[in-house]
Amino acid sequence: MTAAHCWVPVPDGSPFPLQNLPYGVFSPPGGAPRVGTAIGDQVLDLSAIWAGTPLGADLAGGSLNRFLRRGPREWAYVRGRLTELLTGTEQRRLVEANLYPLDRVRLHLPFEVADYVDFYASEAHATNLGRIFRPDGEPLLPNWRHLPVGYHGRAGTVVVSGTRVRRPAGQRRGPDGAPVFGPTRQLDIEAEVGFVVGVPSAPGEPVPVGAFSDHVFGAVLVNDWSARDIQAWEYQPLGPFLGKSFATSVSPWVVPLAALEHARIAVPPQDPAPLPHLAEQQPWGLDLALEVRLGDAVVSRPPYRETYWSPAQLLAHLTSGGAALRTGDLYASGTVSGRLPDQRGSLIELTWNGRDPLRLPDGSSRAFLADGDTVTITGWAPGADGVRIGFGEVTGTVVG
Amino acid sequence: MTAAHCWVPVPDGSPFPLQNLPYGVFSPPGGAPRVGTAIGDQVLDLSAIWAGTPLGADLAGGSLNRFLRRGPREWAYVRGRLTELLTGTEQRRLVEANLYPLDRVRLHLPFEVADYVDFYASEAHATNLGRIFRPDGEPLLPNWRHLPVGYHGRAGTVVVSGTRVRRPAGQRRGPDGAPVFGPTRQLDIEAEVGFVVGVPSAPGEPVPVGAFSDHVFGAVLVNDWSARDIQAWEYQPLGPFLGKSFATSVSPWVVPLAALEHARIAVPPQDPAPLPHLAEQQPWGLDLALEVRLGDAVVSRPPYRETYWSPAQLLAHLTSGGAALRTGDLYASGTVSGRLPDQRGSLIELTWNGRDPLRLPDGSSRAFLADGDTVTITGWAPGADGVRIGFGEVTGTVVG
Repeated sequence: MTAAHCWVPVPDGSPFPLQNLPYGVFSPPGGAPRVGTAIGDQVLDLSAIWAGTPLGADLAGGSLNRFLRRGPREWAYVRGRLTELLTGTEQRRLVEANLYPLDRVRLHLPFEVADYVDFYASEAHATNLGRIFRPDGEPLLPNWRHLPVGYHGRAGTVVVSGTRVRRPAGQRRGPDGAPVFGPTRQLDIEAEVGFVVGVPSAPGEPVPVGAFSDHVFGAVLVNDWSARDIQAWEYQPLGPFLGKSFATSVSPWVVPLAALEHARIAVPPQDPAPLPHLAEQQPWGLDLALEVRLGDAVVSRPPYRETYWSPAQLLAHLTSGGAALRTGDLYASGTVSGRLPDQRGSLIELTWNGRDPLRLPDGSSRAFLADGDTVTITGWAPGADGVRIGFGEVTGTVVG
Repeated sequence: MTAAHCWVPVPDGSPFPLQNLPYGVFSPPGGAPRVGTAIGDQVLDLSAIWAGTPLGADLAGGSLNRFLRRGPREWAYVRGRLTELLTGTEQRRLVEANLYPLDRVRLHLPFEVADYVDFYASEAHATNLGRIFRPDGEPLLPNWRHLPVGYHGRAGTVVVSGTRVRRPAGQRRGPDGAPVFGPTRQLDIEAEVGFVVGVPSAPGEPVPVGAFSDHVFGAVLVNDWSARDIQAWEYQPLGPFLGKSFATSVSPWVVPLAALEHARIAVPPQDPAPLPHLAEQQPWGLDLALEVRLGDAVVSRPPYRETYWSPAQLLAHLTSGGAALRTGDLYASGTVSGRLPDQRGSLIELTWNGRDPLRLPDGSSRAFLADGDTVTITGWAPGADGVRIGFGEVTGTVVG
């Protein structure tokens, strides 16, 4: 089957060909939020397709969570049935009646976030930050190659793409060492990939690396906005807190793992070999190319494929101590940076903590973000039939 | 009004006199979970008292959240009405028909936890840990007196008192510096007080210190179980993660702030004076005495009254960057320790990281917890009419 068989038009370059079928929550004009899938430049109302069934009821709410909880067999059934509907003719009228132009609908946060964990899985990113903050020491701390370092973020501040990002206030170290309170002067981005848990796990029962796709439904783009000056003052000894707890933006479309089969690759060589419970069983690295734009200017192209720890390893670590998973758990890779300077996923790396400001096409420069700046992250992966699987975008504009 | 006017018997020494009226979620024999209030050694089914009303519907579910969201006026109305019902005779039959012996009901996690934050607000605790881990440096880090240091924990691992605590596995530093994976050898407790948010706040709108009681409904006892060896290996540079993400136990009864009016005291002198947005407006320190038992032996009596940062200051800090509050947010004080050795709220302090094991009455000793150990934390505050307001207990038994 190729994309040509899809009778819903898919414009060239669309992130949403038939091979993608990502899930989100939308409101049609005058209607309530419901679950939909993006196809070309339209969205199909899935609650209408399954109206009158228990599945339809689960698709009629304002989040994906009830659908996510149904698990891999149901995910596969819905995906398979959608492919039939979009390539066959038997129900074409029903489908046509429930397609809405994407530019006419409102997109919502696609799932209710249970717990949000942010990892630190990119070796280049961790190395860059180590060099910036500990120039005289080893850039990677001793634990980094043995476990995926991570921490819990604030689930309640996860917002959907398009939500304005208010510049947070906070304490930062003042010129004489005493703190001052005021708007952050070092507002930054972190270009990341997030993974969404569908099937919960029981407390005390670790999820092995090999069970990744039994629990995780799909992936989103993440921008974990960060206030570096607030973070630098607060983070010892318990880690980032308010410097990361004002906005974490996610893309509105959750790309199912099923759409990423052709993007699967091995993670980079891991040395030393991970302990057995973290050893990768099957390749769950992903050949996913990110692009970060500040306004219209492309400022970075982070290659997710270079990320050291796979999402399956992150999940195995997260649950290795007995923590249960809940439907809606979101865990992100941490900033994705490649080895090259123009592949860095945060401004603190791109400008080397402000030392080398970015020059923008309009002649201005940026060490960190200014009010009015819009940051947009897009992502693409190779899909079946030679097409590209798009993640759409996660965007946000800074307001003072 | 004195406790003698309550016609429901309240045994001497009960934590739940008329002046308390804490809220929880219970199931009567054969029945579904619902909201109740503890009085003496019974629990009153509040969903039955308000049956047939919208309030009754909010009290009929399996969590306090919908009641909490109603806000201070409704909280005051329900408390006032309960006092009338328990001291008057007009509805005595209705009340009597809906009282259940506490030892016949099952108690549940009282609220759905939205985000969980753990602070580090006790000066003695932070000082002790600084002395243990950085014996050659200043025990308190430079930020500690300027802001309440805190971090996000895992909301999904908050459990109700009585839930067994499985000893977590994890990576710890091995004898040659490389990590080994296995059950923690340093399982610890942290005796804390937690605060439960009822009324949400808008993103970007900080909650000032003076608005504490507009948002926070009440308090619980917390035992934030901790695996010290796992924590020590993982926590640089992003803070505690799996060493704290396997079980956080809370007491089943949420004591409303209204019951704690007589316990309010000033916080200890704060030097330097906090920045204006953190300056205490009214005294929200609390004269709350904790007791920690290991088995039957009292091992510590932490005085919450000595805690440096008040819960109103913690909330103002938490929201100062624009983070919204949600109904069900839980934030805890961090380990409560007093200045005296027998007032320390964790084993790592009581045994000075295992150097001075505790001797127990049965002749055994403990550096950290053994399988089969039961830890119980109780708490008491002065109430109206000279009575004591009890928090009940948070207890848990370690299983291997």
